[in-house]
Amino acid sequence: MSQTARLSEQALARAALTYLAEPGDPALGALLEICEPAEVLAAIKADMLPGIGPGCGDSPAGRRALERALGRWRIRLPHLPGDAQIAAACRDGVRLVCPADPEWPGGLDDLGPARPYALWLRGHADLRLACARSVSMVGSRAATGYGAHVAGEIAADLGERGWVIVSGGAYGIDAAAHRGALAAGGVTIVVLACGVDYPYPAGHAGLFAEAAAQGLVISEWPPGRHPARLRFLIRNRTIAALTRGTVIVEAGERSGALNTARHAAQLGRPLMAVPGPVTAAQSAGCHRIIREWAATCVTRAEDIIEMVSALGDPLTAAMTPEPRAVGGAPSRDELDTDSARVLDALPARGAAGTSTIAAEAGVDLDTVLRCLGLLAGSGFIERCDRGWRLRKPQRAG
Amino acid sequence: MSQTARLSEQALARAALTYLAEPGDPALGALLEICEPAEVLAAIKADMLPGIGPGCGDSPAGRRALERALGRWRIRLPHLPGDAQIAAACRDGVRLVCPADPEWPGGLDDLGPARPYALWLRGHADLRLACARSVSMVGSRAATGYGAHVAGEIAADLGERGWVIVSGGAYGIDAAAHRGALAAGGVTIVVLACGVDYPYPAGHAGLFAEAAAQGLVISEWPPGRHPARLRFLIRNRTIAALTRGTVIVEAGERSGALNTARHAAQLGRPLMAVPGPVTAAQSAGCHRIIREWAATCVTRAEDIIEMVSALGDPLTAAMTPEPRAVGGAPSRDELDTDSARVLDALPARGAAGTSTIAAEAGVDLDTVLRCLGLLAGSGFIERCDRGWRLRKPQRAG
Repeated sequence: MSQTARLSEQALARAALTYLAEPGDPALGALLEICEPAEVLAAIKADMLPGIGPGCGDSPAGRRALERALGRWRIRLPHLPGDAQIAAACRDGVRLVCPADPEWPGGLDDLGPARPYALWLRGHADLRLACARSVSMVGSRAATGYGAHVAGEIAADLGERGWVIVSGGAYGIDAAAHRGALAAGGVTIVVLACGVDYPYPAGHAGLFAEAAAQGLVISEWPPGRHPARLRFLIRNRTIAALTRGTVIVEAGERSGALNTARHAAQLGRPLMAVPGPVTAAQSAGCHRIIREWAATCVTRAEDIIEMVSALGDPLTAAMTPEPRAVGGAPSRDELDTDSARVLDALPARGAAGTSTIAAEAGVDLDTVLRCLGLLAGSGFIERCDRGWRLRKPQRAG
Repeated sequence: MSQTARLSEQALARAALTYLAEPGDPALGALLEICEPAEVLAAIKADMLPGIGPGCGDSPAGRRALERALGRWRIRLPHLPGDAQIAAACRDGVRLVCPADPEWPGGLDDLGPARPYALWLRGHADLRLACARSVSMVGSRAATGYGAHVAGEIAADLGERGWVIVSGGAYGIDAAAHRGALAAGGVTIVVLACGVDYPYPAGHAGLFAEAAAQGLVISEWPPGRHPARLRFLIRNRTIAALTRGTVIVEAGERSGALNTARHAAQLGRPLMAVPGPVTAAQSAGCHRIIREWAATCVTRAEDIIEMVSALGDPLTAAMTPEPRAVGGAPSRDELDTDSARVLDALPARGAAGTSTIAAEAGVDLDTVLRCLGLLAGSGFIERCDRGWRLRKPQRAG
């Protein structure tokens, strides 16, 4: 069953733009702030600048920059798949999530014009919900045994406590973090710098399949797109923006993980680093950002949860059930009004999507997400392919 | 040759007080702020409160506290050695340094009434000069191989750059720090919690002898005094106050090193900690004080020098010759006026003490210390048992 039949004209245009432009292109970001995606796409196809208002492209220099960008995007036009082909890409668990979709993570909007045009997803987890309780954990590809061990242990502890681990799917620390989360039965999100159907590194094809089954594999690049050096750096801003905070486990002085760290700091998200032996070059970058007070020194999952929960966001508090403490969960009578409404909004049989439930319950999206998290954590409901469904049998046990 | 003949009445009284009272006794500290030591000693011997002014002991509660203290100090009177015996203690390299002596380190006065009554020294280095460029390095007795290795390496690097390592002479990190400094030909100061003639731990008798030969072994307790649990904690404030900054290399959550760390922080001296594997309990205390931003994360000698040199003190700048960069030292004509005066004040043959040189040169003590450091670093002069002497032959080479 494909998602494409349901893709709007604007979503199809955003999908097409992921084929034509590299993510983070400032000209396209600026255009999408003022024009509809379909209008921008039509302008590229017609080799004409879209009708733009004052403040963008109305100076000679701005106009020249836009003309250069247009030329850049048109180069890929001959290879742009048609709508039917884009439809064909959305199958086998691959789907598209666009800004303002219920599943779009609000944190990405903090990137401003640099936010992704759209995200390609492989897997069934709800991206917005997963990111609401997520931490990115990144580090050196050439990790030491110590670093890989510590990343795996901390990721597993976070996973057990219901926190989602976001990382880049690379060798070393990234892989150890993903694997730790998976081993604990947690959700993990792999953010690739290539198509979600393109296993890079190839040795991680199995890991990505597991992540998609238990979480998500996501990318700003369309299916089929190859990785490239610069793409990893552009991708890093997304890892930082998706999550509540970033943890660096091992990073040499020139590690790409420090690029992700910089993005987290620029976004005002908590930046944390795990120390290690001062005799290992792999910890030098961690120690430097701790010494310069750019990062907080963390040594275990509790330290990290304390940092990312300090934001005063009710989401975190409400969505932090004690690990496996289902026995202590509230009874139906003890639910707050919103959660009771949301629970009532779920169909007696089958499942419903988040926005359907929100409409049925008559509560806003943030509230419905908070309540769904609470209800899932308390064992009332569970996620499935088609959204959320009641989880009656287990609740009794 | 004994120092005692030269001990003033007040110095002899201070020596006696180190026999009668435990260091850090608040009643004795308060008395010594307003009375001469000999007056206090006479009052103890006569079992009468000394004539005290307003603000101390003039309230009934203050008076009762003083009476209790008097009882406490008189208990040890039967065991107080006579002046001749105290004179006998000052031999074989053992000597006494009192507040306001040229060799008294000014940093101790930051302790206020809690400063030592006097210090017993074993070894020939100039205490004040050594402390002017010193760092304390303390840590767990149950150090890991990693911790001992790192403490030794950093201490050796600091020693090579002319920094003095101060520590407590214990097993583990303390011993590794002392040994690192000694191996690099540097000066090290052992601050004991017992008499300077009492090797505790016994296994460190050889280490203490080396430290005395190449630096100093010092104590607030008189010769012959045994160590005791509480004495280690009282001793720690002295380690912190003697030095420009304190480095913790390994410390479990309840390590005594964290007590020294607290004193350093209270004194406003830079507090630093070396990270380690988060899997080792011995680094947990270091990581905690770094995480709570009480301590700066340091990984090498350069980090430490940067921290303790950031005080804007001309002493540090003037006394930091590049290690072994004698070739680049100034010629006699290039010396500043004060340094030239101090150099001229040294006897053509034999040696002179710091205060003699100051008097001869007609410059104040801080200036003479700065100049002596500069001249020694530049190869003009060198330390010897009896003070400073010209170092003509080497200067040519």
